[in-house]
Amino acid sequence: MMKAYSLFLAMLAASATPAVGAESTAPLGAAPNLDDDVKNVVFAELWERPELTRRDRSLVTITAEIAQGHLESLPFQFALALENGVEPQELSGAVTHIAYYSGVSAAVEAEAVLARVFAQRGIKTADLKVVEAKPAPDAEAAKAQREVVLSMVGDVSPGLAHFSNTILNGDLWLREDLSPRDRSLVTVSALITQGNVEQIPVHVNKGIGNGLTRAEIGEVITQLAFYAGWPRAFSAAAVVKEMDLPE
Amino acid sequence: MMKAYSLFLAMLAASATPAVGAESTAPLGAAPNLDDDVKNVVFAELWERPELTRRDRSLVTITAEIAQGHLESLPFQFALALENGVEPQELSGAVTHIAYYSGVSAAVEAEAVLARVFAQRGIKTADLKVVEAKPAPDAEAAKAQREVVLSMVGDVSPGLAHFSNTILNGDLWLREDLSPRDRSLVTVSALITQGNVEQIPVHVNKGIGNGLTRAEIGEVITQLAFYAGWPRAFSAAAVVKEMDLPE
Amino acid sequence: MMKAYSLFLAMLAASATPAVGAESTAPLGAAPNLDDDVKNVVFAELWERPELTRRDRSLVTITAEIAQGHLESLPFQFALALENGVEPQELSGAVTHIAYYSGVSAAVEAEAVLARVFAQRGIKTADLKVVEAKPAPDAEAAKAQREVVLSMVGDVSPGLAHFSNTILNGDLWLREDLSPRDRSLVTVSALITQGNVEQIPVHVNKGIGNGLTRAEIGEVITQLAFYAGWPRAFSAAAVVKEMDLPE
Repeated sequence: MMKAYSLFLAMLAASATPAVGAESTAPLGAAPNLDDDVKNVVFAELWERPELTRRDRSLVTITAEIAQGHLESLPFQFALALENGVEPQELSGAVTHIAYYSGVSAAVEAEAVLARVFAQRGIKTADLKVVEAKPAPDAEAAKAQREVVLSMVGDVSPGLAHFSNTILNGDLWLREDLSPRDRSLVTVSALITQGNVEQIPVHVNKGIGNGLTRAEIGEVITQLAFYAGWPRAFSAAAVVKEMDLPE
Repeated sequence: MMKAYSLFLAMLAASATPAVGAESTAPLGAAPNLDDDVKNVVFAELWERPELTRRDRSLVTITAEIAQGHLESLPFQFALALENGVEPQELSGAVTHIAYYSGVSAAVEAEAVLARVFAQRGIKTADLKVVEAKPAPDAEAAKAQREVVLSMVGDVSPGLAHFSNTILNGDLWLREDLSPRDRSLVTVSALITQGNVEQIPVHVNKGIGNGLTRAEIGEVITQLAFYAGWPRAFSAAAVVKEMDLPE
Repeated sequence: MMKAYSLFLAMLAASATPAVGAESTAPLGAAPNLDDDVKNVVFAELWERPELTRRDRSLVTITAEIAQGHLESLPFQFALALENGVEPQELSGAVTHIAYYSGVSAAVEAEAVLARVFAQRGIKTADLKVVEAKPAPDAEAAKAQREVVLSMVGDVSPGLAHFSNTILNGDLWLREDLSPRDRSLVTVSALITQGNVEQIPVHVNKGIGNGLTRAEIGEVITQLAFYAGWPRAFSAAAVVKEMDLPE
């Protein structure tokens, strides 16, 4: 995937070279083994693995960057996502979705970066739409879900139950700019990145229902080992292992 | 709460417009649904809920921003906190308090932002005081607390026990620039934001003792669902539910 | 340790004074108690404690800063690390190591900061080497470790098992620019900072095998109470206490 690596180098050069000084010819140079690993392991191997498409890897990685507040890395990752086939409206939808799983400010800060990337690439934000939610496909199931939320947290935090049932389950997940499968991909990635192991099972199961496969979940964990660190990946793998998912 | 939203737009325009480019008229524009949700759900609904004062919501939100390192969002949140009635000396006290629960560097980086906000609003840092700790209100209880700390971590980490008993319990919590209730509000917010579920019960109980109510704790969780993400809020709600707090 | 504090003030003055405005004479001034605590507790007391060398404290603290994305604090901490005797090649090795435990982007963003610090101090990145891995000292033990990884996560995430056995255990930990003891110091610090309590026991045991002492582990926790916050330190202490390590 040398195209991605070239893009990475070009964006590093644009941002980092003046600070590093004229004597440096390497992209960063201060950690030569890291530079080598990024080139030979991350770009030449990880991103090329067939177990997950590059498009999906971009959605996973962008989620990890936003959840961790890596604003310096986001311009490159947003640009790479567009190269990998994520549509501008899907990126908008993903950033909005992540707001609810990683916090509004993480998403608004990322949105400012995305606005710059769109401007640099000639994508007009005026062409982006406010997307409406579809009706829930199964009204009975939606009602049952609302009851579950109320019984779980309605007494302790009525506000959390209210907003879970209105803006999240009753609106966000039903918006048409990102498929339910992609919303699950993004949500599971946020949970793994943030170490929210308690909520992984329910969202992995929901993701399977939305069309993710067991093998894809396993490769999401692999991608996040690199972009959120090995400890988060191992904690997630231990939880998923206990779930005993069908092949 | 359109005043807050107007302030939000004004500060976004000051920071983001040049980067976004002249073709953008929206505040950010790259994620229109997120922009809508921030306006219609976060500002028009969440911040207006009567279950927690705007002043308290500001203390909760500033804690979440500092704990997550959202330096880009902090100028707005500090300005909003002043608008909402948090006194400059209280903001100083809150940033100092957060240093011990989210790390010194998170707080020092936030302090640099606060210094800029104070300067822009004509608040002179020379008027801020170094605040002394009062004597502990109950010397016997303070002694018992020191014994508990020693028995918990004195053997594994003598330094942790030493500093817990001197700088934290013997000084920080007794300083007069932030009330014990507000210190509990900030501490519980830091724990929820960071996913430190193990320590939530002891600090929720302490907060109840310091004057926080069960309903306020529930609404802190609601506020943090938006500012730290739904997963942290649900994990916190599950822990508080087990506590079976009195109405 | 007034030299470190002077360096801290000088680097703050270089970055913060223009923003704070001319009326400020204090280093930051917006939180006077925090300024006092940084001077009198963090620098005059914590960094001077004999239980851990200043060099080791620098490795621990740099790990915490990178893991939390505190890019504003890193220039000072990298400079302090060099003053405290961490060699440039060791810093390179540490940043690379942290990439695998806190994520590639956290490390690449830190590497850009390190490149600036090296340039400012006349350290030529051309003198840094790509370091090769030594053969594993015990081939049988290495083989057994690979089997353990496969049995733990090979089914759930074949990619995670593959990269764990190749790039991590089969390469990173065997590179000669950072000793196994220092790699354990960095790894344990990353786990504590990120709240990865599940993985603390295996890496504390590995660290003891690599030459860390029980007292040093306890003081790593103390250092991280200040640089990652008290909650992470208490969670780590509770886990280490259960391990019942030999004196």
